[in-house]
Amino acid sequence: MPSYKLTYFPVKALAEPIRFIFSYAGVEFEDVRFDREDWPKIKPTTPFGQVPMLEVDGKKVNQSTAIARYLAKQHGLAGKNDWEALEIDAIVDTIHDLRAKIAAHHYEQNAEAKAAKLKVANEVVPYFLERLDNQVKNNGGYFVGGALSWADFTFVALLDYLNFMSKSNIIEKYDNLKALKEKVENIPAIKKWVEKHPESGF
Amino acid sequence: MPSYKLTYFPVKALAEPIRFIFSYAGVEFEDVRFDREDWPKIKPTTPFGQVPMLEVDGKKVNQSTAIARYLAKQHGLAGKNDWEALEIDAIVDTIHDLRAKIAAHHYEQNAEAKAAKLKVANEVVPYFLERLDNQVKNNGGYFVGGALSWADFTFVALLDYLNFMSKSNIIEKYDNLKALKEKVENIPAIKKWVEKHPESGF
Repeated sequence: MPSYKLTYFPVKALAEPIRFIFSYAGVEFEDVRFDREDWPKIKPTTPFGQVPMLEVDGKKVNQSTAIARYLAKQHGLAGKNDWEALEIDAIVDTIHDLRAKIAAHHYEQNAEAKAAKLKVANEVVPYFLERLDNQVKNNGGYFVGGALSWADFTFVALLDYLNFMSKSNIIEKYDNLKALKEKVENIPAIKKWVEKHPESGF
Repeated sequence: MPSYKLTYFPVKALAEPIRFIFSYAGVEFEDVRFDREDWPKIKPTTPFGQVPMLEVDGKKVNQSTAIARYLAKQHGLAGKNDWEALEIDAIVDTIHDLRAKIAAHHYEQNAEAKAAKLKVANEVVPYFLERLDNQVKNNGGYFVGGALSWADFTFVALLDYLNFMSKSNIIEKYDNLKALKEKVENIPAIKKWVEKHPESGF
């Protein structure tokens, strides 16, 4: 088994889907959560000035989605064939588009631009969520192929972050997404992870 | 051979990496470029209100990066093993982070917010490009594993769009990225594609 070291800020956010996959697979990993004040020291040690960073036997790689896909492949969470892998990838990138729309509003400093981005988010977010909810409804309670995949982990693991930025429970009206969240969080290994991991931000 | 239909606006932008892969692989595809005024009619026919959309024997899928990865796998452009696939995925997502920083400035309507985003882009874009240039330098003239992959196609195919948004030639100072562009554009199938395809925007 390779040695895994995951480095990120002391929050869930973009690292949490990776932590879910490790936990589900029962793979040990070093879960490094650095203080924000240490970021200027850590940034130059990363490949592209970004975290999450994963080190696999010392080899460094960036980009949380790429990392999650790689680990998902190793542990049977990336679809039964190339077409399912494509559908999973498409759902994951759609979830990140949703995140980007919410983040564009959340992180905007200028009041007028922030209001404009809220207007966009208020239109786009329900549009995406309705379709994601239907996707789960039409695929046996999971995003793809009637089976658990890293798309499900990505959505559920990011929810706290999305809700934090949105200042609301974004899936409140979406029964299939709510059921998915409950199902994922009741997987014993995930339940254990969620219960034990540090209470350190979204 | 499945039937492929690619639907997008009448521009290069996010569809061009997919078109490069099809061209390189010698795979025929229907290259539908609709007029912008027809978008309200087309949008409801897409899975998540987004294009590019690919139809494979009538099955629809969204998300350009997911589509490109799927096609790259079919045609030997996705790395020799899972680790290389991960490295390629990480480079592709880093390229899209670069694009997002440029786009955040380009598409911002509010003058003050636009100026703030230009400042960010002016710092972040050279930071990424310097590291992408080094990546090519250290990997035998390609992004990953000393061999052509869809990461190379993604970068070169998106360049016109990135330059259009940046109002400059962003790789001007980066010799390894310039050499990569020349190498990719001189692949006979790509050369032929670039020469013959409609002169329709970036």
